[in-house]
Amino acid sequence: MKRTFLYTPGPTQVPEDALLEMARPIIHHRTPQFEAIFADTLKKLKWLFQTQNDVLILASSGTGAMEGSVVNFLSKGDKAIVVNAGKFGERWGEICRAYGVEVIELKIEWGKAVKVEDVKAALDANPDVKAVYITASETSTGVAHPIKEVAALVKERENTIIVVDAITALGAFNVPTDEWGLDVVVSGSQKALMLPPGLGVVSISEKAWKLAETSTLPKFYFNFKKERKNHLKNTTAYTAAVTLVIGLNKTLSMMQEDGLETVFARTEKMAHACREAVQAIGLKLLAPTCPSPSVTSVFLPESVDGGKLVKLMRDTYGVGMAGGQDDLKGRIIRISHMGYVGEWDLYIALTAVEKALNQLGHVTPIGKAVGVAAAIMGA
Amino acid sequence: MKRTFLYTPGPTQVPEDALLEMARPIIHHRTPQFEAIFADTLKKLKWLFQTQNDVLILASSGTGAMEGSVVNFLSKGDKAIVVNAGKFGERWGEICRAYGVEVIELKIEWGKAVKVEDVKAALDANPDVKAVYITASETSTGVAHPIKEVAALVKERENTIIVVDAITALGAFNVPTDEWGLDVVVSGSQKALMLPPGLGVVSISEKAWKLAETSTLPKFYFNFKKERKNHLKNTTAYTAAVTLVIGLNKTLSMMQEDGLETVFARTEKMAHACREAVQAIGLKLLAPTCPSPSVTSVFLPESVDGGKLVKLMRDTYGVGMAGGQDDLKGRIIRISHMGYVGEWDLYIALTAVEKALNQLGHVTPIGKAVGVAAAIMGA
Repeated sequence: MKRTFLYTPGPTQVPEDALLEMARPIIHHRTPQFEAIFADTLKKLKWLFQTQNDVLILASSGTGAMEGSVVNFLSKGDKAIVVNAGKFGERWGEICRAYGVEVIELKIEWGKAVKVEDVKAALDANPDVKAVYITASETSTGVAHPIKEVAALVKERENTIIVVDAITALGAFNVPTDEWGLDVVVSGSQKALMLPPGLGVVSISEKAWKLAETSTLPKFYFNFKKERKNHLKNTTAYTAAVTLVIGLNKTLSMMQEDGLETVFARTEKMAHACREAVQAIGLKLLAPTCPSPSVTSVFLPESVDGGKLVKLMRDTYGVGMAGGQDDLKGRIIRISHMGYVGEWDLYIALTAVEKALNQLGHVTPIGKAVGVAAAIMGA
Repeated sequence: MKRTFLYTPGPTQVPEDALLEMARPIIHHRTPQFEAIFADTLKKLKWLFQTQNDVLILASSGTGAMEGSVVNFLSKGDKAIVVNAGKFGERWGEICRAYGVEVIELKIEWGKAVKVEDVKAALDANPDVKAVYITASETSTGVAHPIKEVAALVKERENTIIVVDAITALGAFNVPTDEWGLDVVVSGSQKALMLPPGLGVVSISEKAWKLAETSTLPKFYFNFKKERKNHLKNTTAYTAAVTLVIGLNKTLSMMQEDGLETVFARTEKMAHACREAVQAIGLKLLAPTCPSPSVTSVFLPESVDGGKLVKLMRDTYGVGMAGGQDDLKGRIIRISHMGYVGEWDLYIALTAVEKALNQLGHVTPIGKAVGVAAAIMGA
């Protein structure tokens, strides 16, 4: 009978309506029935991406869509700038190197955002750079990079594209693809899209398609040109992840009912309230100056073992949050504000943290964080 | 209120118990809770593969697992023998060529199986072949290739592995990995595993791992060595398709309750009954001499448009079957016997075909096919 709550920055909670929709009898992917759903989902996805560009749906995690965003646009020996300020920025570099792409890495301290002038300097020093790989919301640290400003730099350069990992950004905060001129934008199902993992989505601009014409890196499963051809006929090159696409159609409908602005405002308000609340109980933010609204990363008191805290909350309280990765292991917690969560979830999360801190010997008044957060959340 | 039935060779019907299991609240993939399920699923998968080899679970369709079975073992310029007797054998060649592997293709007429002596001749003529790519059950034609015999040829050769597409074979009929010495065996979730599409599974022998040491083809998402390292800790390199893994655990439990022999015997008996029944009403089999128990391919009378027939059955009767691909488009139907189907499903399928033939002007006595099939299915 124990009820559980999940506030990890992916997977996030899946709405009951989407779970039930996905539990209906399976249908075949090469049928007018599924093609109609697929077409409708693509249309809704374009709304979410805020784009007229092509949008593809892939049967893979977000990482697969990231790999596709390297192998479809570059060739061996091409140069790419990679913004690495955490686990997921690092991944762009790993993928590029695995395929023989020369990486100009802007390595940034975890918890900080890239400086626009550093990207500019790298672009100026390397006019032959084919692509800039960047992360809208660095899930490992909770940092939001200045995508709009970096995109403006890239836009000026005829032969360079910007590729944005928006895996924990799309649907959480405003990253308008067309308005900002984002050439390739990647996301995954288990974040603000409120679904189980297993779907990657990606939008591709005309400028990026032009670059794709020259790309010679080998690809098969993640062949975007082949997928585009199939998507134009409302189908996929290989078997679609049928149930997840059906679930995506449902969660996109839910988002459309609320409207983008409402969804973004809710996420931002919760993130703001969370940041104020944890600071009110004496905790420090990892990314105070450039926080992503998707996920708040909070330093724990030095006396507290973060691994134990996460375990206590999860296994005893039934409240799931993420700990830190790599150097931050045991030192932070990460609380998601994406998707199917609201005010009450935030209060559960904050109270769980307070209770757990006390239980691990760090005296904290219970209810203080909720008080601060509730004042911000308003009536 | 219209009830529907799905007898396509993938996706196949998903058991209600698995649908409900997957509709439970999502859990995080980096937790002891999920790791326990993952470990248990791997154990059950080894039972299904009949192997002591490593088994990997990938978040992709079966085609992704096929790509992984090329890029992890070969290098550019390596030679591979590909048995191509249909759409899926052809795919092995396409993947190999996309990665610069030299393909020695044994092209076989659709509806026929490869001759063992032809594989032997190709191996003898090309002693430097690194891998033989073959299909256990060619889904586009319903042909079963002589895997055991081909594997015996490859086993003798120290530097050659056999890679088997068992996407519509694993769990449908006996392809014992270790007993036959199959180095790499690939499958996918939406066939005899009775799940929605989105999971690939693959088993890998020591001989194949040895070859992987020399492989220089680029890979990232489908990096088997990296996955093996993670799987040994009961996790995945990238986010697992959590719900599908949980569903797989459930369907594997259901198969274990029946036992492999029972599952295989049921599939084979239905396939046998189906073949006899359709011949009794004057239809011809595409693969009379080498039929796969997974799927029966049946030629339609020349006067009947196969596309119309499939559409009529699906949209009017609610009974889904597959038509033909490429040259066989409009000329055949394909009826699956995999997974969550039994005697009564077969009778529905056969009666639907009879009714549809009549409706499209080909006079056929209704009930004759069921009579023949029921006599074989027995009491």
